[in-house]
Amino acid sequence: MEIKEKFGQKVKELREQKGFSIEQLANISNVDRNYISDIEKGKRNVSIEIMEKIILALDTDFIEFFNDNNFKK
Amino acid sequence: MEIKEKFGQKVKELREQKGFSIEQLANISNVDRNYISDIEKGKRNVSIEIMEKIILALDTDFIEFFNDNNFKK
Repeated sequence: MEIKEKFGQKVKELREQKGFSIEQLANISNVDRNYISDIEKGKRNVSIEIMEKIILALDTDFIEFFNDNNFKK
Repeated sequence: MEIKEKFGQKVKELREQKGFSIEQLANISNVDRNYISDIEKGKRNVSIEIMEKIILALDTDFIEFFNDNNFKK
């Protein structure tokens, strides 16, 4: 799986754990909802600043977000 | 410190631990050396695909790379 897809999958997983809709996550993160939808589908080569907005909106940090065996090389 | 700067600092730290020059890291990662130099200075809003190239070239993965208290929110 490509890194874009792994990232999107994890965003979706945490968003659903939080009980957020895409629209809610968009509002909290200040990232467009269509862009978030594309990210979750693994379609976007997201930048580190957008990653940070989404990760913080999911109430986590880079340490915890990537601490997942799906990100093992 | 901005996330771009934290990322760049960690790239530089690991590159130096490995004893690589910027040029060597550029060759291994297939990322332009001027771009790597800018990343290390915190000047680039790097994409997840470029991040992956550099992280793999540093012989690590996203889990280990971000497992650093500098990435705590």
